[in-house]
Amino acid sequence: MPPIVGVIGGGQLARMMIPRAIELGIELRVLAESEGMSAKLAATAVGNYTDADTVLAFARDVDVITFDHEHVPQGVLAQLVEAGVSVHPGPAPLAVAQDKILMRQELTRLGLPVPEWASVSTPAELDEFLAANGGRVIVKTPRGGYDGKGVRVVSAASDVADWFEAGNPLLVEELVSFTRELAQLAARSPSGEVALWPLVESIQQDGVCAEVIAPAPSLTGSLADAAATIARTVVDELGVTGVLAVELFETSDGRLLINELAMRPHNSGHWTMDGAVTSQFEQHLRAVLDLPLGATDARSPWTVMINVLGGPASGTIADRYPAAFANQPTAKFHEYGKAPRPGRKVGHVNVSGDDLDDVVYRARAAAAILKD
Amino acid sequence: MPPIVGVIGGGQLARMMIPRAIELGIELRVLAESEGMSAKLAATAVGNYTDADTVLAFARDVDVITFDHEHVPQGVLAQLVEAGVSVHPGPAPLAVAQDKILMRQELTRLGLPVPEWASVSTPAELDEFLAANGGRVIVKTPRGGYDGKGVRVVSAASDVADWFEAGNPLLVEELVSFTRELAQLAARSPSGEVALWPLVESIQQDGVCAEVIAPAPSLTGSLADAAATIARTVVDELGVTGVLAVELFETSDGRLLINELAMRPHNSGHWTMDGAVTSQFEQHLRAVLDLPLGATDARSPWTVMINVLGGPASGTIADRYPAAFANQPTAKFHEYGKAPRPGRKVGHVNVSGDDLDDVVYRARAAAAILKD
Repeated sequence: MPPIVGVIGGGQLARMMIPRAIELGIELRVLAESEGMSAKLAATAVGNYTDADTVLAFARDVDVITFDHEHVPQGVLAQLVEAGVSVHPGPAPLAVAQDKILMRQELTRLGLPVPEWASVSTPAELDEFLAANGGRVIVKTPRGGYDGKGVRVVSAASDVADWFEAGNPLLVEELVSFTRELAQLAARSPSGEVALWPLVESIQQDGVCAEVIAPAPSLTGSLADAAATIARTVVDELGVTGVLAVELFETSDGRLLINELAMRPHNSGHWTMDGAVTSQFEQHLRAVLDLPLGATDARSPWTVMINVLGGPASGTIADRYPAAFANQPTAKFHEYGKAPRPGRKVGHVNVSGDDLDDVVYRARAAAAILKD
Repeated sequence: MPPIVGVIGGGQLARMMIPRAIELGIELRVLAESEGMSAKLAATAVGNYTDADTVLAFARDVDVITFDHEHVPQGVLAQLVEAGVSVHPGPAPLAVAQDKILMRQELTRLGLPVPEWASVSTPAELDEFLAANGGRVIVKTPRGGYDGKGVRVVSAASDVADWFEAGNPLLVEELVSFTRELAQLAARSPSGEVALWPLVESIQQDGVCAEVIAPAPSLTGSLADAAATIARTVVDELGVTGVLAVELFETSDGRLLINELAMRPHNSGHWTMDGAVTSQFEQHLRAVLDLPLGATDARSPWTVMINVLGGPASGTIADRYPAAFANQPTAKFHEYGKAPRPGRKVGHVNVSGDDLDDVVYRARAAAAILKD
């Protein structure tokens, strides 16, 4: 019998595991939130992932449960573990990914570099942090945010009055003066094997990852070492299993600060699908099944990933294929099976090659035609 | 709506189209011969491909019909075309792939280099060919052979008495004195765009492809040009659409002779899945949908493909993953979801790199563990 991996969540991350599962002969089963989602080809169940009975029924007969997202409630995870289901990443590391205040606490406890931060429960506490941090700060809701949602740049407590009304503490962070954003992708298996991909640069637009350059240009060995140490510490100390992405700020004075953790395959790792010996999706499957990890070397000097955000103004991405394929025969297209909507991630393009300027040009040209 | 490609046949070639269809957002529907076949994940129908009603029902609503094999009867193909279904490759080129005597006639008509051959209907005719060709020749049944089946080395007409009894003409060919076998993979779209991958060397064992080295070592420009011209002539003159493989003999006096044609993705092109910018499976989908073809450049100086024939003596390939993955972290594993059986193709391994000896070693080591 082939190994069976159950994935909770039917988005594009689950979808992009399917090709690798087919190639390795792994049976992938997806619990999708609704019909017709990105990962529908592997959806063996449709249901609510916050409902323990639904999740327990789905998890029956699988060898391991893993995730398309970090939002499965701890109560449901606890019931899975109690039922003897192998869950990767496990409830404890997932708790850290689920709550940004807990994440800051844990990273601080581990002595890892993070921006100045505080947990604030009242406008007065926020005012105090504002006063101590230059009058402009970042406020984040601890739970449920993604792609810039649940994040605001704030210069007065009244800017988040609505969030305070909910009665939960908020995370407040200094506005970091950074020169660029980097991301360190890692994978760890339950046996403790760790693999790190090359450090990449990620370019955000409106809080959404727009472009990734692998490896990060102008990379010094010490910067790469620092990022690798941070990621290795996080996965080892928190006991993360599967793929983890550490989003980092490179500050103007040359330090690295941890921005966010994603405890799953991540947009900053989509370049690996065509640019690395082992993609993050294959590695995630290997890791959660506790199989030896694959080589993470880059396959070309440069790979650039461009997100297709929103999709074309009319019609579908597939309508643009004749023009895009003809224009960029080296581009690798990844479509997510999602209806276009402004700002929505509906696909991405990877281009690899020897010359960075040329690779960037080709990737942008291909993506631009899809969005046209 | 995404484009819909219908594939007749549920074997590993159909299976290996699924990942690329997912990535491109193409809907793939497979008509499988039976339940539980390699391509079961995309099987929307199970039925007999020699039954016109079954095939016509399957073909309803698809944008194009293509194939996992070349065995769909011409009568069924004709009804598809009459019903307005787009069929690639079309009935006319497929007829050439279906009948080895017609294939030799057509290649001869096109002035392409083939071994000495004849169509023989009686032992006397075979004796005559034997006498004129050194007393040892190859006899092939014109239809239904694959992987060495339907092929015999013959030194007397009595060696194929059983085949003569069937009453159909047989193809007889000279026993070519070749130094090695090569394969030229090509793709052509209905619009006439042609793409050629690098010429590869293929190493056969017992009539089955065992190993492919891409590109073929010690390749001269004139040999590569000759192979490219042959493949281009075949696809253009026969109007082939989709992927075609030309299996070639390199003779001891430096000529190329056409051994076989395969009018579909082919074992000699499995290296492209990890070794070329565009794999043969993606290219086949592009071609049959008349989309612009992708770049066919090699991604590494060398890629070696090793077939996993028969699989392990006990258990499954997946049981061997811990050992194989740990031993060869750079190897790419492709499993076909088929029960192991002696000599059966149950998977393959690709390894890419800069040093051929090292790449061959790693690929053989990985495949050996899977077969262990």
